[in-house]
Amino acid sequence: QSRWWSGNALRGDAGRLEAFSDGVLAIAITLLILDVRVDPTDGESLTHALHEALPQMAAYAATFLQIGIIWANHHALFRLVARVDQMLLLLNLLLLASVAFLPLPTGLIAEHTSGDDGQTASLLYGATLTLSAVAFNLIWRRVSRRGLMVPGVSAAFVRDVDIRYLSGLIGYAVATALALVASWLTIVLTVLLALVFVLGPSPRSAMPEQAAAPDH
Amino acid sequence: QSRWWSGNALRGDAGRLEAFSDGVLAIAITLLILDVRVDPTDGESLTHALHEALPQMAAYAATFLQIGIIWANHHALFRLVARVDQMLLLLNLLLLASVAFLPLPTGLIAEHTSGDDGQTASLLYGATLTLSAVAFNLIWRRVSRRGLMVPGVSAAFVRDVDIRYLSGLIGYAVATALALVASWLTIVLTVLLALVFVLGPSPRSAMPEQAAAPDH
Amino acid sequence: QSRWWSGNALRGDAGRLEAFSDGVLAIAITLLILDVRVDPTDGESLTHALHEALPQMAAYAATFLQIGIIWANHHALFRLVARVDQMLLLLNLLLLASVAFLPLPTGLIAEHTSGDDGQTASLLYGATLTLSAVAFNLIWRRVSRRGLMVPGVSAAFVRDVDIRYLSGLIGYAVATALALVASWLTIVLTVLLALVFVLGPSPRSAMPEQAAAPDH
Amino acid sequence: QSRWWSGNALRGDAGRLEAFSDGVLAIAITLLILDVRVDPTDGESLTHALHEALPQMAAYAATFLQIGIIWANHHALFRLVARVDQMLLLLNLLLLASVAFLPLPTGLIAEHTSGDDGQTASLLYGATLTLSAVAFNLIWRRVSRRGLMVPGVSAAFVRDVDIRYLSGLIGYAVATALALVASWLTIVLTVLLALVFVLGPSPRSAMPEQAAAPDH
Repeated sequence: QSRWWSGNALRGDAGRLEAFSDGVLAIAITLLILDVRVDPTDGESLTHALHEALPQMAAYAATFLQIGIIWANHHALFRLVARVDQMLLLLNLLLLASVAFLPLPTGLIAEHTSGDDGQTASLLYGATLTLSAVAFNLIWRRVSRRGLMVPGVSAAFVRDVDIRYLSGLIGYAVATALALVASWLTIVLTVLLALVFVLGPSPRSAMPEQAAAPDH
Repeated sequence: QSRWWSGNALRGDAGRLEAFSDGVLAIAITLLILDVRVDPTDGESLTHALHEALPQMAAYAATFLQIGIIWANHHALFRLVARVDQMLLLLNLLLLASVAFLPLPTGLIAEHTSGDDGQTASLLYGATLTLSAVAFNLIWRRVSRRGLMVPGVSAAFVRDVDIRYLSGLIGYAVATALALVASWLTIVLTVLLALVFVLGPSPRSAMPEQAAAPDH
Repeated sequence: QSRWWSGNALRGDAGRLEAFSDGVLAIAITLLILDVRVDPTDGESLTHALHEALPQMAAYAATFLQIGIIWANHHALFRLVARVDQMLLLLNLLLLASVAFLPLPTGLIAEHTSGDDGQTASLLYGATLTLSAVAFNLIWRRVSRRGLMVPGVSAAFVRDVDIRYLSGLIGYAVATALALVASWLTIVLTVLLALVFVLGPSPRSAMPEQAAAPDH
Repeated sequence: QSRWWSGNALRGDAGRLEAFSDGVLAIAITLLILDVRVDPTDGESLTHALHEALPQMAAYAATFLQIGIIWANHHALFRLVARVDQMLLLLNLLLLASVAFLPLPTGLIAEHTSGDDGQTASLLYGATLTLSAVAFNLIWRRVSRRGLMVPGVSAAFVRDVDIRYLSGLIGYAVATALALVASWLTIVLTVLLALVFVLGPSPRSAMPEQAAAPDH
């Protein structure tokens, strides 16, 4: 039985969902700079004001990297999607909401770098990234367990991706919790996690043929 | 007789109109976060400031959901469009204007949660969503009654969608009016309406074959 | 002789140029709402503050319409473009710059509605729209006179479009100059011009077959 | 051995990477206007306030041109890309980060036009553009030296582009350093460099056939 905007109706619509998601991710990554404010007070030199804005710029760079990796990851995952259902649509909205939310905690970790407020900011920043990781796991579960995948994906590949996504979730959750030890630990660890993810090892099993082939 | 940018000229251009609309919707949904401001006053802890920003975050989440559903709905509707004329273009602009306007009432319901101002904010918020529903009804009438649809859509399917869209309009109008009883009612009901729309039942009649098939 | 990013290199790239332009137009149209601020002062009711924001909302609606028409017009024009050269690229940037600039004069006509400042604001608003019209004329000249068009466009069609674009330019220039008589005249006339353009008559000669056919 | 979101997995994905980049560039170019603020102080006429905003508008126009050229250049380069790997993805993020960062120094050169602060602002502005040039050189090296190019590109063409990109980098670096002589020199020279790049000579050797042909 077909539904209004899902099931059969959206068969083959992964491309459209991805295009909308790309738009949101591109905007979120570009809006980040709006939160970096360099405004010398009376008598202060611009050099000094820029020096004081270094934490903001570091936060800008860190979140830029995170959203960039999330984009690449989103793209890689949706290559494997053949069909979209209503729940997948909602889960994808959850992912987009967490990414679109990132400018807020990014501004907070830039402004609050020490003490209790620094810890609160790091916790919120880490929690938002952890929510993204949760959304990715839910999306992957939905896609891989409900027959929404392209044909020809081996069980070994699915297991490898399961482990990869669960590891990412645990990594971000641990990085978040470590804000209770020192607030800068969360920032450093989430950057490292992103770099490991992009430069580190890949699923040992081969990609399915269809998904690995040029698709445009 | 062909017109400059309509009629024959835009035959087959539903895709372009939809791409532009997707851009506007993606930007509107991502701009929402700019209105969530967490700025502790002197001596206030960040935890407390975040606590005070909870209404803003709830409003952010509610409108994020609304625009997400509107996107999905827009996409489902335009799958059925084969041809674009000038009036459809204007009606689509009306829909986009109402969505792009949403950040304003979203900010207002977050800031004004009680009393007369809370009621005013809820009325404006509900009225904007109701305007979106009006635009959807007008677009659907134009498409289904003026021969702008893809071939093969059954009269039963058209009637089902008629009812669906009219129900949505009535639902949002009632939710808006209920702001006169209690301002939070509007927010809660519009969220419920969105969830019912995405998770609830679908037109009983089958989608037309052409629209249901993979199109990319 | 081929150039780095033009001539042969960009043959067939009208689609890419248009996609980039669509992005800019979609963002400009959605950013408009950021300039509508409703912030009741102490003791003022929200209803009263909204009442005071009516000029801002009218300005929002007027510019939303203008950019929407510009998008449709841009799209219609680029359907006829087969090849992009460096000058066309620069002229398109000029058009995009004038549209991306529109939020500024839109904010000014909303805030300054009478007296000398109202006149200044209307002049700048009208001048920006006139600059868009200039850019459209230059783009059309470049496309139609330098062999960048798709084949099969009749001389009669080119002449019709010439007249259409020149009329638009003259109309916007006159509307701008009338700010010297009364500042609201510019706003009303530019809105009327946009509506005439979208709902009024079209080139009498037929569109070229290739451009009129479905292209996706 | 295939990696999760690179190598075989992203073969043929240059188009997706370019679409995401186009989104970021379109947003960055459109956000620029948000930094132009025209707000007459008490008793000041709007004409006077606009006069005072001229440096901001000049900065707006200059950066608009730079991002427009960067877009065209990015597009020309990625026409030659057949395959995307992880490092290319990171280098592209570096380029996008430098462009998305541009609104900040653009605002600074508009506000600080003389003295030590003017020099600091010009240095940061020039350095950001130089970073873009560095990213372009790194991207080009990666593409041309690691077998990520489309087939059929001659060694002579690669050498011509090498020289072109290195010249650009040197030009922007020199323009940046000249801020130490006079801060306006950096602005004028970077605008001239952009115009030379768009209107000046091209690689003497022919484009490869595949890249020069219509691709859509």
